Amino acid sequence: MLYGALEAGGTKMVTAIVNEKGEVKERASFPTETPDKTMPVLINWFKERHPDAIGIGTFGPADLDEASPTYGYITSTPKLAWRDYNILGAFKEALGIPAGFDTDVNAAALGEAAFGCMKGISDGIYITIGTGVGVGVLTNGKLLHGMLHPEAGHILLSQNAKDTFAGNCPYHKNCFEGLAAGPAIEKRYGRSAKELRDIPEVWELEAEYIAKALVNYIMILSPKKIVLGGGVMHQEQLFPLIRKKTAELLNGYINTNETANLDDYIVPASLNDNQGILGCARLAELALK
Amino acid sequence: MLYGALEAGGTKMVTAIVNEKGEVKERASFPTETPDKTMPVLINWFKERHPDAIGIGTFGPADLDEASPTYGYITSTPKLAWRDYNILGAFKEALGIPAGFDTDVNAAALGEAAFGCMKGISDGIYITIGTGVGVGVLTNGKLLHGMLHPEAGHILLSQNAKDTFAGNCPYHKNCFEGLAAGPAIEKRYGRSAKELRDIPEVWELEAEYIAKALVNYIMILSPKKIVLGGGVMHQEQLFPLIRKKTAELLNGYINTNETANLDDYIVPASLNDNQGILGCARLAELALK
Repeated sequence: MLYGALEAGGTKMVTAIVNEKGEVKERASFPTETPDKTMPVLINWFKERHPDAIGIGTFGPADLDEASPTYGYITSTPKLAWRDYNILGAFKEALGIPAGFDTDVNAAALGEAAFGCMKGISDGIYITIGTGVGVGVLTNGKLLHGMLHPEAGHILLSQNAKDTFAGNCPYHKNCFEGLAAGPAIEKRYGRSAKELRDIPEVWELEAEYIAKALVNYIMILSPKKIVLGGGVMHQEQLFPLIRKKTAELLNGYINTNETANLDDYIVPASLNDNQGILGCARLAELALK
Repeated sequence: MLYGALEAGGTKMVTAIVNEKGEVKERASFPTETPDKTMPVLINWFKERHPDAIGIGTFGPADLDEASPTYGYITSTPKLAWRDYNILGAFKEALGIPAGFDTDVNAAALGEAAFGCMKGISDGIYITIGTGVGVGVLTNGKLLHGMLHPEAGHILLSQNAKDTFAGNCPYHKNCFEGLAAGPAIEKRYGRSAKELRDIPEVWELEAEYIAKALVNYIMILSPKKIVLGGGVMHQEQLFPLIRKKTAELLNGYINTNETANLDDYIVPASLNDNQGILGCARLAELALK
């Protein structure tokens, strides 16, 4: 079997062909323009490669409810050309093969569960911290959709008293994304995250916000594994700071094997930034079954 | 079929016999003393009534992992007499009938799902705000356990700038429970919640903290229904305040049928404070199957 995988992002579309072992046989990347321009390119790419099924992990919000008349649509995105666009339907019609559909971050969580560091784990989360913050959630062995899908990058956090930054989210300034995504770091200090690498205070504060979010994820979802990926998390000095701060904030309230060993509980993404594409391949496989 | 139901609380044990229709045929309440004193009383009560199965919803933390050697135990509770006590095992051995086991709040969520206002809903939460704050979580049609079980009363919240109360949680002062449970209200104002009923500022602040918590539950769990019960929620004037504040904080970010109609989304518990006992009966039924 060959699975087609599409990570549909707001700035680029990553396509891949993946085999059953989770090996990426081929991949490509295309800029995200309008559906009129971009979709024929993507459809042709997949048509030429004859996958048996396709899996799509998309930017959102998206309608994941199979019983809904707009299942498979990208919905109220600020990217207007893609608003209310039936991306799943377009691929199904053009390719005539089974197609799976979920959010980009749920796909990434699934990728880690199928091939990476969440293998065999029924309840876990994948968090990406980059230009935005997104969270994919696995509970009882399934991706969590619920009413819509998690938007856990937008949880409200208490701001550090010394941090006078106004917050960067247009909806809720002091949410996790508004305080801690890449653009928030850049705006707070007037420099890119990479240029700030050697300034400890930057990463102390960043770790504090990430830890505050993790504590809330732990209290609400009780995950067995927490995987952190995305551009900001390439600053690997964050991991020990996050673990330390999380332990301080939990303050001994949760006593499990996992919280006793935070090095193994709060971990970096394991698949060389391929967790999204591999999760899409897994969505394709599930659609075929 | 007759189901035995036990709501095991830190101050009282509520027992009941429930039929398949969810009718409570008989109930009793006993003070929670030590296992030595309390357990024989409870066991006799059930023995005399011959239920076909029993369901236990307990105060926590509790071990819900069926694969664990301490499955069915109350674990690291501050109530020392009950610490590491195998409550499920004691009932199984004494009664010799199938027995279901979960947290008190998960049982309450299950009760609302089986017989109340979450009927037919796959993803929802039941929140109790009383002497503490607890949250039962249903995702993909199943109660959420994960690593341990949700402890979502202990999420960290941003404190209102004018609220100088130090917070009442011994672990994390400004968590939801520490700021908004009944004892926090009493300590902040030096009077009981009932005596404060006619002071609007009290309920404005209380609604703000509840709404901040709900926003985080919505962002993380994406529930299709939010049910609020417990002693504090008997202050019914809270509901419109909570809905208004939740809408303000969401600020249009989540657009679903549910968020468009908050009167039907954020609702009071529906079963006259019987959701716990009925959920325990449902646990018994599931154990029998």
